[in-house]
Amino acid sequence: MTPAFITLEGIDGCGKSTQAALLAHALETAGATVCRLREPGGTSISEQIRSLVLDPSNTEMGTICELLLYEAARAQLVHEAIAPALAAGASVVCDRFYDSTTAYQAFAGGLERERVRLANELAVNGTHPALTLVFDLPVEEAAARARGRSAADRMEAKGLAFQKRVAAGFRAIAAEEPARVHLIDATGAPDEVHARVLDVLRKEGIL
Amino acid sequence: MTPAFITLEGIDGCGKSTQAALLAHALETAGATVCRLREPGGTSISEQIRSLVLDPSNTEMGTICELLLYEAARAQLVHEAIAPALAAGASVVCDRFYDSTTAYQAFAGGLERERVRLANELAVNGTHPALTLVFDLPVEEAAARARGRSAADRMEAKGLAFQKRVAAGFRAIAAEEPARVHLIDATGAPDEVHARVLDVLRKEGIL
Repeated sequence: MTPAFITLEGIDGCGKSTQAALLAHALETAGATVCRLREPGGTSISEQIRSLVLDPSNTEMGTICELLLYEAARAQLVHEAIAPALAAGASVVCDRFYDSTTAYQAFAGGLERERVRLANELAVNGTHPALTLVFDLPVEEAAARARGRSAADRMEAKGLAFQKRVAAGFRAIAAEEPARVHLIDATGAPDEVHARVLDVLRKEGIL
Repeated sequence: MTPAFITLEGIDGCGKSTQAALLAHALETAGATVCRLREPGGTSISEQIRSLVLDPSNTEMGTICELLLYEAARAQLVHEAIAPALAAGASVVCDRFYDSTTAYQAFAGGLERERVRLANELAVNGTHPALTLVFDLPVEEAAARARGRSAADRMEAKGLAFQKRVAAGFRAIAAEEPARVHLIDATGAPDEVHARVLDVLRKEGIL
């Protein structure tokens, strides 16, 4: 198989993390060295930034500060983990990347797309995903799944209407960039969704 | 007098902070309400970001992550302090602002100017200083002054050659934007330098 930088996107509760684990296992089985990462976070410095953004006591945080903190964490993840892994011939599977910023901060949060695009470009410095999988699930179903997990952070506390704008944003991104971004039906059991992921990887020549 | 957003710039030890205090006092004497701020920092969230950037244990921090963290702290300072103060009719005197990022990260640190310019624009969201005073002092003299103060942080530890590139960067910015940026001879006693500052403010119609 060809080493690749693959990102997984979608609203909270869509099954991204489970699918990331299954995907990494499939790639390893096919002989790849896989570096699994998540955003925001993934390095010590990025985790410090993540804590700062998600701290519920930082209620005064402006939308541009929040955007630039996510981008700073991303820049560090690219610098310290993603770029070196790709340079070493590994595949990278990342749970959320810059499409989350576009969906959450622009489509749902109301920041201008062009501003978010510029911030994303600054952060990744040319390191773009080869393939992005958007896990599409009705917002109510995702919320029910997410409810079974740990307490809501600042982002998850924003409610269903916000999550619907995020989900619509992800669908719009998939429609705008069909060569890179693939919408995956995330309903059904994890194995069923995983089979859909493998289909896409085979069609794209990665597996 | 006319309320104004004034920034003070220059290498460590050039006398910015002393001059900021004298300037604020002069503006208040002239009837202004003055909001004094410093970068990086100035708000609770910005101070948290400042601590993260200046923490000497964060040795793995990449240059783009560092840039975006400074910009995130700046965005919060603009959002929470500078824009509201200006909207309320106060003058703002800020010890360092985006020209420091241009001088340190671009001229001295080697990041592309255009990248730094875009990052600065993202952070300030249209809130630009009306007047910027660059305090120009031979690097050796500034270092001797700075040595009398608290321990060197990550930035100050970079040495004289780095500081010379920073000082040259500030001079270049002053040459490029003469309408906004004024180079002030920072040699001599604080009162002498302050007199030069007052001259500029009178010529610019601020005092």
